[in-house]
Amino acid sequence: MSFTPSITTELVSGPSRSLVKSWFEKTRSVTDALIAPLSAEDQNVQSMPDASPAKWHRAHTTWFFETFILSTTERNYTPYDPQYEFLFNSYYEAIGARHPRRERGFLTRPTADDIALYRAHVSLAIGDLIDGCSEAVWGGIRPLLVLGINHEQQHQELLLMDILHAFSRNPIEPSYLNHIPLDASESSALTWTKFSGGIHQIGQDVTPDTPFAYDNEGPRHDVIVQPFNLANRTVTNREWIEFINDKGYERPEFWLADGWTCAQSEGWTAPLYWREDSPGDWSAFGLRGRHPVYLDMPVCHVSHYEADAFASWAGKHLPTETQWEIAALDKPIEGNLLPYGAYRPSVSTPTLEVEQLFGDVWEHTRSPYTPYPGFKAASGAVGEYNGKFMSNQMVLRGGSCVTPGSHLRKTYRNFFYSHQRWMFAGVRLAEDA
Amino acid sequence: MSFTPSITTELVSGPSRSLVKSWFEKTRSVTDALIAPLSAEDQNVQSMPDASPAKWHRAHTTWFFETFILSTTERNYTPYDPQYEFLFNSYYEAIGARHPRRERGFLTRPTADDIALYRAHVSLAIGDLIDGCSEAVWGGIRPLLVLGINHEQQHQELLLMDILHAFSRNPIEPSYLNHIPLDASESSALTWTKFSGGIHQIGQDVTPDTPFAYDNEGPRHDVIVQPFNLANRTVTNREWIEFINDKGYERPEFWLADGWTCAQSEGWTAPLYWREDSPGDWSAFGLRGRHPVYLDMPVCHVSHYEADAFASWAGKHLPTETQWEIAALDKPIEGNLLPYGAYRPSVSTPTLEVEQLFGDVWEHTRSPYTPYPGFKAASGAVGEYNGKFMSNQMVLRGGSCVTPGSHLRKTYRNFFYSHQRWMFAGVRLAEDA
Amino acid sequence: MSFTPSITTELVSGPSRSLVKSWFEKTRSVTDALIAPLSAEDQNVQSMPDASPAKWHRAHTTWFFETFILSTTERNYTPYDPQYEFLFNSYYEAIGARHPRRERGFLTRPTADDIALYRAHVSLAIGDLIDGCSEAVWGGIRPLLVLGINHEQQHQELLLMDILHAFSRNPIEPSYLNHIPLDASESSALTWTKFSGGIHQIGQDVTPDTPFAYDNEGPRHDVIVQPFNLANRTVTNREWIEFINDKGYERPEFWLADGWTCAQSEGWTAPLYWREDSPGDWSAFGLRGRHPVYLDMPVCHVSHYEADAFASWAGKHLPTETQWEIAALDKPIEGNLLPYGAYRPSVSTPTLEVEQLFGDVWEHTRSPYTPYPGFKAASGAVGEYNGKFMSNQMVLRGGSCVTPGSHLRKTYRNFFYSHQRWMFAGVRLAEDA
Amino acid sequence: MSFTPSITTELVSGPSRSLVKSWFEKTRSVTDALIAPLSAEDQNVQSMPDASPAKWHRAHTTWFFETFILSTTERNYTPYDPQYEFLFNSYYEAIGARHPRRERGFLTRPTADDIALYRAHVSLAIGDLIDGCSEAVWGGIRPLLVLGINHEQQHQELLLMDILHAFSRNPIEPSYLNHIPLDASESSALTWTKFSGGIHQIGQDVTPDTPFAYDNEGPRHDVIVQPFNLANRTVTNREWIEFINDKGYERPEFWLADGWTCAQSEGWTAPLYWREDSPGDWSAFGLRGRHPVYLDMPVCHVSHYEADAFASWAGKHLPTETQWEIAALDKPIEGNLLPYGAYRPSVSTPTLEVEQLFGDVWEHTRSPYTPYPGFKAASGAVGEYNGKFMSNQMVLRGGSCVTPGSHLRKTYRNFFYSHQRWMFAGVRLAEDA
Repeated sequence: MSFTPSITTELVSGPSRSLVKSWFEKTRSVTDALIAPLSAEDQNVQSMPDASPAKWHRAHTTWFFETFILSTTERNYTPYDPQYEFLFNSYYEAIGARHPRRERGFLTRPTADDIALYRAHVSLAIGDLIDGCSEAVWGGIRPLLVLGINHEQQHQELLLMDILHAFSRNPIEPSYLNHIPLDASESSALTWTKFSGGIHQIGQDVTPDTPFAYDNEGPRHDVIVQPFNLANRTVTNREWIEFINDKGYERPEFWLADGWTCAQSEGWTAPLYWREDSPGDWSAFGLRGRHPVYLDMPVCHVSHYEADAFASWAGKHLPTETQWEIAALDKPIEGNLLPYGAYRPSVSTPTLEVEQLFGDVWEHTRSPYTPYPGFKAASGAVGEYNGKFMSNQMVLRGGSCVTPGSHLRKTYRNFFYSHQRWMFAGVRLAEDA
Repeated sequence: MSFTPSITTELVSGPSRSLVKSWFEKTRSVTDALIAPLSAEDQNVQSMPDASPAKWHRAHTTWFFETFILSTTERNYTPYDPQYEFLFNSYYEAIGARHPRRERGFLTRPTADDIALYRAHVSLAIGDLIDGCSEAVWGGIRPLLVLGINHEQQHQELLLMDILHAFSRNPIEPSYLNHIPLDASESSALTWTKFSGGIHQIGQDVTPDTPFAYDNEGPRHDVIVQPFNLANRTVTNREWIEFINDKGYERPEFWLADGWTCAQSEGWTAPLYWREDSPGDWSAFGLRGRHPVYLDMPVCHVSHYEADAFASWAGKHLPTETQWEIAALDKPIEGNLLPYGAYRPSVSTPTLEVEQLFGDVWEHTRSPYTPYPGFKAASGAVGEYNGKFMSNQMVLRGGSCVTPGSHLRKTYRNFFYSHQRWMFAGVRLAEDA
Repeated sequence: MSFTPSITTELVSGPSRSLVKSWFEKTRSVTDALIAPLSAEDQNVQSMPDASPAKWHRAHTTWFFETFILSTTERNYTPYDPQYEFLFNSYYEAIGARHPRRERGFLTRPTADDIALYRAHVSLAIGDLIDGCSEAVWGGIRPLLVLGINHEQQHQELLLMDILHAFSRNPIEPSYLNHIPLDASESSALTWTKFSGGIHQIGQDVTPDTPFAYDNEGPRHDVIVQPFNLANRTVTNREWIEFINDKGYERPEFWLADGWTCAQSEGWTAPLYWREDSPGDWSAFGLRGRHPVYLDMPVCHVSHYEADAFASWAGKHLPTETQWEIAALDKPIEGNLLPYGAYRPSVSTPTLEVEQLFGDVWEHTRSPYTPYPGFKAASGAVGEYNGKFMSNQMVLRGGSCVTPGSHLRKTYRNFFYSHQRWMFAGVRLAEDA
Repeated sequence: MSFTPSITTELVSGPSRSLVKSWFEKTRSVTDALIAPLSAEDQNVQSMPDASPAKWHRAHTTWFFETFILSTTERNYTPYDPQYEFLFNSYYEAIGARHPRRERGFLTRPTADDIALYRAHVSLAIGDLIDGCSEAVWGGIRPLLVLGINHEQQHQELLLMDILHAFSRNPIEPSYLNHIPLDASESSALTWTKFSGGIHQIGQDVTPDTPFAYDNEGPRHDVIVQPFNLANRTVTNREWIEFINDKGYERPEFWLADGWTCAQSEGWTAPLYWREDSPGDWSAFGLRGRHPVYLDMPVCHVSHYEADAFASWAGKHLPTETQWEIAALDKPIEGNLLPYGAYRPSVSTPTLEVEQLFGDVWEHTRSPYTPYPGFKAASGAVGEYNGKFMSNQMVLRGGSCVTPGSHLRKTYRNFFYSHQRWMFAGVRLAEDA
C-alpha cells in the first residue's frame, strides 16, 4: 500500500491530542449506543447489496483505524486478526482483495461479541498511540484520526439507514426505537426567496481554521450563477400526496427517461416505506415502526428520479448544489440532527426565510457529483475515499435527522445514485428568477 | 384449508400414545441438540435460496405441528402468534400466503430465543393433547403426529446441509463440530454383484406392519427389470480424482447436454466444497471444517449431472431406483446415519458384497422422480407434501451420514434437481449384465 | 471426429439406391417449398433462443449431409465453405466449436441466396455419390442418408414452429399461408376406451422390416402396465375454455410446483398465441394469421405444465408413453400430417374409438424422456443426436399437423421441456381403470 | 398529442422553401446511398438493444416527418399505414404506445421494399407540402422540417454504428465497404496549447443567423474557467497500446469505481472491435472489415470509462465540454466527416496547434450531460427530443468520421452512457495549466 496521509486532511496547526482523543472516544461511544437496541441477529442481516450489516459497520470503522493508523505507525503493530483485513475492507483496491460486498450477511462469525472485543482492542490502542506517540508521528496521524472519526460518523448514518431497510423487509416490522408522541405542528406556508446572480465562491479548502473537510469539497473556486428563487422549506408529505393523486407516478412527461424506466420496472407508486392501507390512507415505516404519513412532515425516502419528477410536475426544478450552498452561506448549522435529533424528519416552523437547510432530510440537487476544478485525489488508498465515485451519482446537501451534527459542513457533498431511496432524502424546490 | 388426514398415513392399528409421545419428544430434543453449536447469528443466515436458516427450520417444524394438529383438533386452539402462520409456512398453497423463500434470512425477529419459547409451547401442547385427547381425536391425529415427526427429521438433515453451506461461504470457515481423528481404513476393492431380471415388486403400501411411509413410496407394484450388475460400494474420492485428472470436467462427451451447460456456466471443476490448494493437492470443507480429501472415503457433494458424467466416463451408468431397491431388499437398514453417525461419509470395509447401501451418502439414480402407478396425492394441504414436486427432479436412495436412522426405509425416495450439490450425495455404479 | 455409422440405423438389407435418392430429393424439395412464402428477412429472424432462423434450418440440414456423409467418404471432398462448419453446427461437441445458438439471427451473411447455392451444391454432390459410390461406401452411407433425411424432416417441423413464433412477435401479425375457410365440423363426444393390464412390448429395434428408427426408440423391451382408460380424442378448445373459466390458471392446487412458479412468472392465462379480445372472446394466432378460437378443434400450443394442470383439474392424468403406444399398436399411421395436412389441428370426427392418435397435435405424456433399458448411444458425433438430451424433458407422442407423415412411427419419441409451448402440442386424457 | 412546434427551432427569418427542400432531398438521398451495400437481411438485424436495424432507421426517420409534419398540418392527411405509428415511434411517450425497442429485429414485415415505398410516399408528400402550403403553415413547419432533416442525419450516423456492430457479431465479418489502401501518414507529435482562464460564453441560442440548433445547446451563457492546456491531437492507437502494455486494463487505481466494475464484468482488455491475433499483434474490425490496428490513427470505440482511465494513467484528465468549446471557438468546422470522409478515423497531420477537433472521432469529455442554466424543454412530444435524457450520460464533442458534416456545430452536444463503446469515440487529453 502506497500511503500518503497529507492531501485531503492537511492541517497547518490542528486540534490538540486531548481534543482529538475526546472526539475519538465520543464517536466510538455513539456507535456503541446506536447498537444497543439490536440483537445479535439484527446486527448480522444484510437486506440488499447496497446495505451492510450493523456488525460489519462496527468492524469496518474499526478496521479503518487499524489499517490506516495502527498498521502504518513505526511500531511493530500486529493486526488483531489477519483475516479481518480481508473481511472488513470495504472498497480499497490498494489494500488488496476483500470479501464480496453482497455476501456480508454471510459472516455469522466473527460474532457480535467478537467484534465488541475487536473494537475495544483498537480503541485502546488508538488511545495509547495518541497519548504516547512522538510529535513526528502525531503530525502524521492527526489528520488520519480526524478522517477516521468522520468516517465512523458516516457509518453511523449508514447503520441507521441499513437497519431501517432490514426491518422493513420483515413482515413483523420491528421498531428500532419505542414510539414517541408526535409533535402536531403545522408546516410553514411555501414561500420563495430570491438570490441574486453573479460570481460566488463555493467549496472548502483545508486551512488552519478548518479542522476537517473531505477532499471532494475543494478546491474552493469561483462560480457564476444566474438569479434564482429557493423555497423556504422542503416539500411536505401533503404536497407529495397531491403529486400521487395527480397521477405523478403514471405520467411519463414529468420523468427523466431513465427515471421512468426505473419507476416502471420497480413498480414505484409512492416513496419507499409507504403503504396505502386503504384508498387515500397512507402509512409509512420508520425507525419507530409503522405510523401514519404525517402530512406536515417533509417527504422522505424519495430517489433523485422521483424528486426530479416532482419538481417537473410542480413547474420548478431541483436546485443546483451551488444554489444550495449560496443560500446556506449565512445560516448556522442547526437543525434536526444526530445525536440530539428525533431520528425522523421534523415539521418546519412557520417562517418566510429559507430554513431547514440542515438536518431533517438530505436535499436532492440537480448537480452530478463531479470533481471541482483543480481537484486531485490523494495518492494511495486514502485517495479512493471519494474521487473514484465521481461518476453517475448526484449530489445531496444539508444532512438529515440521522446525520451526526458535528459531521456536517455547509460545503458537505453527499452523493447517491439516482435510483436509490433508502437514505433519508427529501426535496427543496428552486426556480429561475 | 381443506384437510384430509387419512390418505398417506392411514394406520389400521398403530403405535400407542406413549410410543408416539416418546418418538415426538426424542425428535424434538435431537433438533435442539443439533442447534447447540450455533450462535444466534449462525441460526439466522441464509446463504442461498435453496437453503433456510437454522432458526427457520426450528420454527417451521413447530409450525407444522401447530397448523396440522393443534389448530385442527376440536379444542379452541389459539395460535401462539398469528404472524407465524405467514412466516413459517414453507410451500403449502392451501394454507395461504407465505413469506418469500429467498428472504428467510431477513427474519432477525422473532429471535432465536423467541423460537425456543415457541418450540416449548407447542411441544407441551402436543404432549398434553396426546395424553388427554379422546380416542376419536387420537385416531385422527396419530398419523399426522407420525408425519410431523418424520417431517422434523427431514429438516434435521436440511439444517445440517444448510449450515455447512453457510459456513462454506464465510472465509473464516467455521467448524460446526470439533475435529475428530480420522479412521485410516482402506476402502474395499471395487467388485460387481449380478442381479437377475424378471418381475419384482417395489414400493411400500401402508399396512399394520408399517408404522409410516410417505405417500410417494406407494403403491407397491410390479416392475420388470433386466439382469444387471451393481457395484459393491460407492465411488471413492480416489476414483473421482482420476476422473478429474482425465479431464472429466472438460470433456463434453461424458455429459448430458443440460449438465454440460450447467457445469460450464457454474465453473465446476470438482465436487462442491473441494479446493485445489496446490496442483493435485485437494482439500474439502465439511462440518468439521477444512480437511484433506481422504482418498478412501466416498465422494460426496456431487450433483446428478456430475454423477452421470462420472458414470459415462467409467463406461457404466447410474442404477435405476428399482435396481437399487432390489439390491436393498435383503439388507438390514444399518450404516453411518444420525444421530450415532460421524456426520461425514465413512470408508466402506472390505467385502465383495453390495454394502454401504444405507448411510454415508445418498446415491444418485437415473430415475426421474415420478408417481408410481396408481399414486394419488392426498387432498388438502398435506397432499402438497410430495406430489407437486414430481417434475424435473431425480430420485436418490439410501440416506446419508446426516440422515436420522429411524427416518429411513428401503423404499424411501429422496429427490433433488440435477444441478444441486449441497446434499450429502455420492455415486454407486451399475451396468447391464 | 470419431464416427460410428452403425448403431442407430443398422440395416440388414435396406432400401435401394434409387429409393433413397428419391426420398432425399423429395425431402429437399419439401424444405424448399416451405420456404416459398418467406422473404429474405423472414428467413433471418430468430425470435427466441429456442427457435432458429429458417435460413439456418436450410443451411444446417445441408451441413448435416455435408459433414456426416460427403466429408467422411473416401473422396477428397472439399467443404463448400470452411466457415459453414462453424456457423451451421447445431450442438455436436465432437465436431468442434460452433456459433452461439442465441446469435443465429445475427447471421445476415451468408444470405438466403447464398444458402440456396449451398443447398444445390450439396444436393448434387449427394446425388452423385449415391449413383457412383462403391458398394462398400454405399453400405456405410445408406443409414446416414436415411438419418439425414429424417433429420431434415424434423427441421421442416421446427421451421414452421419457429416462423409462427417469429410472426407472432410482429404486431403486424403476418400470415404464412392465405386463409382457408374452416371446416365447421363438430368434435366427437368424449368417451373412454379400456385397455387391459399385463406385460406388453414397446419400442423399436431396427430390423430388415424397419427401414429407419431413431436410437432412442429402442431397444424394444417388456413393460408391465396396469389397466387404464384412454380418451377417444384430444381435449378441445371448448374444454380448455372451461378450465380457464373455472380459474384453472389461478388455482395452484392443480399445478406441479415448478409449473405454478413458471405460470406465475410468465403470466400465463391461456395457451400460447391466444388473446382475449373482449371478455370471453378468444382469438388465436396461427400460420394463417389471427382467427377465432374454434371451439371444436383440439387445444394446441400448451406446455406440459399446463397439460398436467388441466388433467388434474379434470380429475384425470396424462397417459404414460407406454399407454399411448399400447393404444396405437393396431392403428394405421393416418391423420392430419404434412405435407397433405392443413397446417393446423383439425376437428376429430365422431366415433367412440380411440382416434386422432397421429397428427393434429403432439400429445403430452407424463413420461420423462429417459433411456430405455439397454440403450446405448452411438459413439462419435452421431451419438449426440438423442442421448445427451435425456434429462429434464418429457416425451410427446403422435406427431402434429406440421409433422411430415413419412417421418412418424408408432414408437416415435419426441421430447420438450415442461415449460415449452411453441410446438404444436395438445392433450389426451387417461385414467386408471 | 399536444404539440408545440416553436420552442427549440424558432427562427425569426429562416431559410427559403427551396433551400429547405434541397436540404430535405439531399438528406433523404444520403440515407438511401448508405443503404446501398446492405442486403434485405442486413437491414433487418438488431445485434443489441442499443442498436436498431437499418430498415428501422429508414422507417423511423420517415415516421418523424409524417407524424410531426404531415399529420399536423391542416390537410386531412391519411397516415400511410396506421400500424407504422406504433412500429416506428422510438421513444415519444406523448405519441402513445410503441413497439418494444429490443424487438425491432423481429419486424421482418414490412419488408425493406415496403419501407422504400413508404419513404418515397412521404418524401413526395413533404415536397408537395413545401411547395404548396400557405405562408402560415410554412412558418409552422419550417422549423420542424429543419429538425426532421437534422434528425435523419443523426440516424445516418446511428445506422453506420449499428451495422458495424451487427457485422462484428458475424464470424464471417462482412465488410460494409471495400477495402481502400491506407494513408501511411505519421501522426503529429503530442504538444499542448494553453488557454487562459476567466469568463467565457458557451452554448448557442437560436437567432436569425443560426438556421438550426438543438434545444440542449442553449441558452448561451457565461462560464468561468481556470487556465488549462489542451492536447493538439487525439490519442493514437500507439499510445493506447502503451496503456494496455502497462496493464492499464488490470490496475484499478486508474479507474472510476463504476468503470472498474464494468470493465471486469464485461471482460474488457482493449477497445471494442480489437482482437489480439498473436501476442502484441492487434487487429480491429471496421466498416472495411478486419484490418491491422494502425498505430498512428486515433484510438476509436472506447467508452467514457476507458477514456477516463487512460487519462488517469497518463496523469491528465479529460477536458470539460466548456474547455473543448473554448478551444473550438476560432476553428473552422472542417475535418474527416460524412459524406466526404473516409468512414474511419484519419491520422492527424503534424502541427503544434490544437487540431482535429471536428470529425475523426467524437471526443469524450468529463462533463455530465445536464441542462444549461435556463434550459426549458419544449412542451409536447418534440420536447422529449433531448431533455429527458439529461441523466447518467456524458457529453461528447466534435463529431466523427461517420457524422454528416452539415449536421455539426461547435456547440453540438452529443451524449452517451459511460459504458457504451459502439459510437466512433476517442480521447483528447487536457490538464490544469
